[in-house]
Formats: sequence, structure tokens, C-alpha cells
Amino acid sequence: MTDMNSQYVIGIDVGGQTTKLGVVDARGTVLAQTVIRTDTYDDINPYIAELAEALNRIIKESGKEGEIRGIGVGAPNGNYYTGTIENAVNLSWGGTRIIHFAELLSKAMNGLPVALTNDANAAAVGEMTYGAARGMKNFIMITLGTGVGSGIVINGDVVYGHDGFAGELGHVTAVRNNGRSCNCGKTGCLETYASATGVARTAREWLELSDEPSVLRSLDTISSKDVYEAAKEGDKLALKIFEFTGKILGRSFADFIAFSSPEAIVLFGGLARAKEYLLAPIEDAMNSNVLPLWKNKVKVVFSQLKESDAAILGASALAWEL
Amino acid sequence: MTDMNSQYVIGIDVGGQTTKLGVVDARGTVLAQTVIRTDTYDDINPYIAELAEALNRIIKESGKEGEIRGIGVGAPNGNYYTGTIENAVNLSWGGTRIIHFAELLSKAMNGLPVALTNDANAAAVGEMTYGAARGMKNFIMITLGTGVGSGIVINGDVVYGHDGFAGELGHVTAVRNNGRSCNCGKTGCLETYASATGVARTAREWLELSDEPSVLRSLDTISSKDVYEAAKEGDKLALKIFEFTGKILGRSFADFIAFSSPEAIVLFGGLARAKEYLLAPIEDAMNSNVLPLWKNKVKVVFSQLKESDAAILGASALAWEL
Repeated sequence: MTDMNSQYVIGIDVGGQTTKLGVVDARGTVLAQTVIRTDTYDDINPYIAELAEALNRIIKESGKEGEIRGIGVGAPNGNYYTGTIENAVNLSWGGTRIIHFAELLSKAMNGLPVALTNDANAAAVGEMTYGAARGMKNFIMITLGTGVGSGIVINGDVVYGHDGFAGELGHVTAVRNNGRSCNCGKTGCLETYASATGVARTAREWLELSDEPSVLRSLDTISSKDVYEAAKEGDKLALKIFEFTGKILGRSFADFIAFSSPEAIVLFGGLARAKEYLLAPIEDAMNSNVLPLWKNKVKVVFSQLKESDAAILGASALAWEL
Repeated sequence: MTDMNSQYVIGIDVGGQTTKLGVVDARGTVLAQTVIRTDTYDDINPYIAELAEALNRIIKESGKEGEIRGIGVGAPNGNYYTGTIENAVNLSWGGTRIIHFAELLSKAMNGLPVALTNDANAAAVGEMTYGAARGMKNFIMITLGTGVGSGIVINGDVVYGHDGFAGELGHVTAVRNNGRSCNCGKTGCLETYASATGVARTAREWLELSDEPSVLRSLDTISSKDVYEAAKEGDKLALKIFEFTGKILGRSFADFIAFSSPEAIVLFGGLARAKEYLLAPIEDAMNSNVLPLWKNKVKVVFSQLKESDAAILGASALAWEL
């Protein structure tokens, strides 16, 4: 079915609401892409059927029928070793099941090989193949979205660990005492502070605890985007929120550096758009908390992938390794 | 000079006071060994000369002249990539210099190949080759000595990172606020609590802060060994000190697991002898702070290498990879 000289791959990003899929060439150009719903299916089988149909449609559209080398999938709780999605409570057809996603999809696509990993690992491979980490063999990808995800690359390989689930840096303990409660059941996890959700929590908490004036007070609900907009208008509380968020991130990054001594930490995701407010406090806190040998040595860089294509590119990059 | 079929290697453990060296076979038997002083030399050259002399003596003693495959060296601040020892302030001939140790030693030994890394990485390779981590491809070695060192193995390879200095887990921040000051210049480092020195510090601190009776009060100076002896006699304060130490370790181990998802964490070093008091609090704290998917899944095991041989074995194991 597959030809190792084929110069095109498929990237699929499985999200809670939608699934993005595209045909990608070796230089990272998305030749054709589309989106299907994820959340309208309670059962995996009709979802896979629609996904296969959509894939065949974009392959045809790209004019590359018979030239596809393989499929890369980024999905929450994706296990690279087994090709399964395990206990993905945020997927309507996920729940507490073990879903043999790669196997099912490969069958539906006439045997095309499928590689699967979690979304943050896929992003790391994408950045290494097409983006800010090109040429790097040791870096850590941190995705700042609804949660905080991570993909760790050591010696050019993604770290999957003993069980396939390594790289859950959103759940290291950032605040040891009285830390915020996390969806995972723990308290003080990095993602309760440094995700989009975490930034909104900080805003709500600080508004309640102080009388400091802020444009955020006039809002009924607050998202990290609201905090970003307020910061752009010079709102002091909003600026302090990003400073705090950056400090929490930088302190944790220092510990990550002690582990794998990366060349760079690459930031990606919605919250990474607040680069101008996050970078300085991250670097300050990071460099204050590393051993002298790493002070001002480790780069903090931001993703270079076009945001609309990044999810597909990240997943597709996995397929080159098939 | 070297014959790839040679079945013997040399292991050298460079410590601040003494240097241990031995001839080792493929099963981890030390055929001949000796010790020289490290701290009587201010300059590297006469030290290397004495080391070479001692090596030739034990090679002769083992009867394996001409059958040595290579030399493995474990040394503080050893860089695997460059074979150098950098800024080793605890070595009398170290200081703030960069010493081309592997090159100097290889020359002095007629071109025998030399591999060098830090002592904790050497211990990890030793444990993987001959000890508790045999057959494991993903584990973290934690050495509990004067300080806390670490050697991280992922997919069967030691993690050296971008610069050769990865695996400094003794310097992750264990206590964020009002943490103890560390030799490295930071505060709250894991090793200020969980090393032999850290245990002694805890004892002195707690004796001063409380009136709790303890056999430790009668001592002029307190070492971790004193605390261990007191615990064995059932001294309540001493037992609480180990409980606290284990908790600090276990909490940090939980963060390490989120990074590389190891099969096991292997403990080694003088303080690891207090296994009966450390294991339960380590496992409790570790399992309370990991994501549900790792709860009660990651083993905490203790080194299986004979303590008197361990340093030589660890270093020698490096030489098999030459």
C-alpha cells in the first residue's frame, strides 16, 4: 500500500470539538485540508468512517492519490507505543475506554500506516521538522492552551517513557502549599496557573482579593484573551497577571533544565500569543533558578508554525518517521 | 592499541579525597583494585602520572595486560561529550579550570580509549549493566551522598542534554519559600534537604526549634549516620527526620515521573542505607503527587551493587560502550 519514496503525508489533529486534517508535503506546505466534528459521535466507529471519507476527499483534492506515505495523528491521551487513545474523558467517544485508534484508522484507509501520539508531542515533532526547533536535538516544547502540555525531545527523539505517556509537565507541582485544585485531582499543578484557564483564574482571584482598579472589573466572565486585551491597553492588573504567570512558568522551566539540559524551550499555543508580556518574566525567573552553568544559556523561543496549520503540521511530521 | 574482543575494562571513580580504580570483567567482577589520593595534587599532570602508574600496576596484577578494552571514568563535573572536567571546585587540581581529563589519561595509557561522565551518570550505567536496573530502559538513578546526584536513562541511553551536563536533579527546587541556602547559590534545592548533609541540617534545625527529647541532643556534632543510629534505637525525632526527608524526596520524584515516565527510581549512596525509614514516606509522597495514571506504578528500588565496588563498577560500565 505504501511507497517509501512517497513525498506526502497526512496530519490529523484530534481535538475535543473538531478534528483537523490535511495533506502535507516535505517542506511543510499544507496542500489540502478540512475539518470535521469530533463531538457529535458517542461511538468511535462512525467517527472513523467519517474521518476516512474526509481523508479520501482531501487526498483527491490534493491530487496525490497513491503518493501518501502515512498518517500522523495528534490526540489527547494518545499512546505512541500502542497507537491507542486511553481514558480520554474530553473526547465524546473517549471516556474511560482504550480505543485502538491507529489500528482502526489504518484499516479504514486500506492499510496506510498510522503513527499516533499526544498533541503536545506532535507539536514538538512539528516544530523540529518545520519550525523553531529545526536543527535542535534537545529541546522542550510547552503548549500553553486550555491546559499546559509538553513534548520533550532528547537527542532528536521524543521522550515517550516506559509506558508511552512521558512529558506531562503541566502536572508538575508549581505551587506546593495551598495550590489551586487541578482537574487531574492534584493541587498546585503548573497548568492551574500557566494555561489560558489559569490566567483567567488568576484574574478572577486577584479581582476578588484586591480593590485595584482594572478594566477587567467591568466584565461578566473573564478569559485569558480579555486579560491580554487589557494588558495591551496598559491595564496594570492585567500586566501584573502576565508577570506572575511568566514567573510561575520560568521557575518550573528551571527545574526542567536541571533534568534534560535542553538547548531551548519552545512555547506554543493560544497563550503564547502574549509573548511580549510573558517572555521577560519567564527569562528572569528561569535564570534566577538554574545552576550557574545554565544562567542565560537556555533560549526561550516561540513557535514559528503558522497557527492555522500548526496542529496539522505537527501531527503530519510524525508520519515522516513511519 | 585496543582490541574490540577484549573482555576487560577499567573503572575509575574520582572523588574529592581519593580515587578508586579497578579492572572489571563482563560480569561485573572486580579482578584487581586500588586507591590513590586525589587531594594531594594541586596540578593535574603529576596526578595523571600516578594514576597511570597505579593502573598499570592493577592491570598487571589482574593478569589481563593487552586485554583491556577501555577506561571509564566517573568524576564530579565530568562532561561526557568533551571528556573534560569543568569547574570542579571540590577537586584540588580542579578549580575553575577546564581539564582535558580523558585526553590526558588516554595519552598516559598509550592510547587506551577513555570515556568520562559525572559520578551519578556512571552509577546509572553501572546499575543498568550489573545491578538493580538490569533490563530497564527507562529509569532515574538518584545518588544520596554528601549531595544529591542523578543519572537519567531514557530508552537505554544516559541523558547528557545539549551541553553534556543534564541530570542535576539535586538542584531542582524542593522548597520554594524560605528554602535552605545551597552551595550552588540557589535556595531550596533538593540536596539541601535530602542528602546526608541535608539530614544533618534538618536534625540541627529541629533540635533548635523544639524541646522534643532526643538522644541526638547529647551529641556535639551530628551526622546523618548519627540520625540513622538514633532511628534504629527508636528515637522519635530521628524517625520524624527520615519521614520528612522521604516526603521531600517523594514529592520531587513525582515531578520527575511527569517528565520521563520511568519504570523505576533507583536509590544509591550512603543515605540510601536508611532504606527502612525512607521507603514508605517516599512512596507515600510520590504516589500522592503523581497523575492517576502513574499511581502505584513506578517502583522505588535500591542499588544492588556491593557498596565497596559500586563506584568502580559504575565507571567501568561506561567503557563497554566505547
